[in-house]
Amino acid sequence: MQTVQIRFANKMKIIVDAFGGDNAPLAMIQGSAMAVEAFGVEIILVGDEQKIKSTAQEYNISLEKMTILHTSEVMQVEDDARTILKEKKSTSMGMGLEALANGEGDAFVSAGSTAALTVGATFIVKRMKGIKRPAIASAMPSTKEPFLLLDCGANEQVRPEVLVQFGLLGHFYMKHILHVEKPRVALANIGTEENKGMPYIQEAYQLMKEAPYHFVGNIEAREIPNGGADVVVADGFTGNMLLKMYEGTALAMMKQIKGILMKNITSKIGALLLKGGLTDFKTKMDYTEYGGAALLGLSKIVVKAHGSSNAKAFKNSIRQAVLAHESGMIKEMEKSLITLSASEERSEEE
Amino acid sequence: MQTVQIRFANKMKIIVDAFGGDNAPLAMIQGSAMAVEAFGVEIILVGDEQKIKSTAQEYNISLEKMTILHTSEVMQVEDDARTILKEKKSTSMGMGLEALANGEGDAFVSAGSTAALTVGATFIVKRMKGIKRPAIASAMPSTKEPFLLLDCGANEQVRPEVLVQFGLLGHFYMKHILHVEKPRVALANIGTEENKGMPYIQEAYQLMKEAPYHFVGNIEAREIPNGGADVVVADGFTGNMLLKMYEGTALAMMKQIKGILMKNITSKIGALLLKGGLTDFKTKMDYTEYGGAALLGLSKIVVKAHGSSNAKAFKNSIRQAVLAHESGMIKEMEKSLITLSASEERSEEE
Repeated sequence: MQTVQIRFANKMKIIVDAFGGDNAPLAMIQGSAMAVEAFGVEIILVGDEQKIKSTAQEYNISLEKMTILHTSEVMQVEDDARTILKEKKSTSMGMGLEALANGEGDAFVSAGSTAALTVGATFIVKRMKGIKRPAIASAMPSTKEPFLLLDCGANEQVRPEVLVQFGLLGHFYMKHILHVEKPRVALANIGTEENKGMPYIQEAYQLMKEAPYHFVGNIEAREIPNGGADVVVADGFTGNMLLKMYEGTALAMMKQIKGILMKNITSKIGALLLKGGLTDFKTKMDYTEYGGAALLGLSKIVVKAHGSSNAKAFKNSIRQAVLAHESGMIKEMEKSLITLSASEERSEEE
Repeated sequence: MQTVQIRFANKMKIIVDAFGGDNAPLAMIQGSAMAVEAFGVEIILVGDEQKIKSTAQEYNISLEKMTILHTSEVMQVEDDARTILKEKKSTSMGMGLEALANGEGDAFVSAGSTAALTVGATFIVKRMKGIKRPAIASAMPSTKEPFLLLDCGANEQVRPEVLVQFGLLGHFYMKHILHVEKPRVALANIGTEENKGMPYIQEAYQLMKEAPYHFVGNIEAREIPNGGADVVVADGFTGNMLLKMYEGTALAMMKQIKGILMKNITSKIGALLLKGGLTDFKTKMDYTEYGGAALLGLSKIVVKAHGSSNAKAFKNSIRQAVLAHESGMIKEMEKSLITLSASEERSEEE
């Protein structure tokens, strides 16, 4: 992902929820400044103007190419997600989504509550025509190339047709953003055989065989980190479990490796000799390099940064929004959905 | 787990499915011989007598303290699981379960089809009184102490009451086999709040609060490898996903670390300096050290060894059966279930 070139981001405007996430607003302001510097984008920071300005001043962060859309309200993680459509409309998240819907920017990035962002994006920004449910899609490292996991938690359970659509959304993302020619789309399941899993998963399998993408069948969780597919489709409950188990296991192992390296003077010398390889490895496994999760299936670009994002992770989430905009992915998706629904109508008439 | 003492295994008789698993019968015969040597147990090998004898001769394996229960039939992974009750009754798995049910041995160990073993154990060996569904329970390493994950795939989806029982089964296993005084039982979920997850999970949460064990609430997948709970309860679909994602991520990371260590002459010297620490780490993360998965909720001890078990992994699965028998776990579970159902009846009468 590191090698993807940013071409004309200086024409882009990214709306940023400056008050979403554990490290807000500092990490969001710093990350935005890094993105301005690296990609030449303009930023609209949504949040308390006074606090943004004082934080920038305190930490000596330039607000060049940034404007502020003021609101003093913040969506809290414990707030009921649906309140974003009413009582919490004027929070930094709500106003950011509203600004995106009104065309004031090209994309919206937030590290705030996933549930609220999903509800808000679905009803304020709106879905793409024909899409039943949006999905949270996370690009993640494998031993080979990065892969996309979706849904990572927008919908706990879904019908088979929705899983089929997730495959299509993932296909487009991998094709247009990560430039995989013919993405291998797989269905997460407890076995590779067609008759594995609950009835709704078996039904999805049959429908995916007919879908307009390269469906490669079921994938067992064991093969996911090994690059067994480019797109892994799951309902939001399962996808969230897989995502977090992956992160948790990687973090736990990293922690233990660090302990081995730092154990004594001999091990520290050993660690020095391995430095290059270990740094590459750490970079590869570092999820902050992969930006956030994209909310796919919407008519505009919405990126969910990790709740615990630091400045660098947040900058990478902005990069993801920039790449999505540049790729013209949404237009491509819309075009294909129109062709698809037209051909479905034709085949129904036959 | 390495430090647990085997006390009087020489009075035990373990029934072994010599023809289940990818490396059967060689790994099963070798693993059994290792178990005889290490624990002093007697073994009944179920399978083709001719093949067992010729394999033992070819690889120079002693069959001391082993008897053979002959059958030339084998349960195949692709066979419908239910056939074990009828057409496939005379397979090595079917006959082994029958022998266990008839009291010819103290435990049964198989690396064959999980689905067939679950069906066979449920209907041939029978469940413990009061238990609705058996669960596959896997002991796994964490950055702290080992934990138990169940169900790892015996039942794809279950009702809330069954999840509550899984918690109880896990509680007993951790208490009696791994000697955890007061096991922390948690429910796998996509958030820690009570209102997270599908309705049946929310309902299980409420019931588990009242259950006769130390329920610590929901656990997110990220905290599982970090030792966030001693017992992690999930339905079989989710549990299987978690188990395999854990294994897959650990294997993928190990592979990459190996690549770093073996990259060039400098890295190889570094690797040498880290040798002790890396070996400890590898041992800790090696699932073959943890034996197989126990089928809990049955009236007798049934252990499912990993399908890809080598001799050492199979020996450790036999050790797990030995420990389970020695601990008197099943009697303890039965006693508690009787007390529990008596107190439930009382409270219903009140």
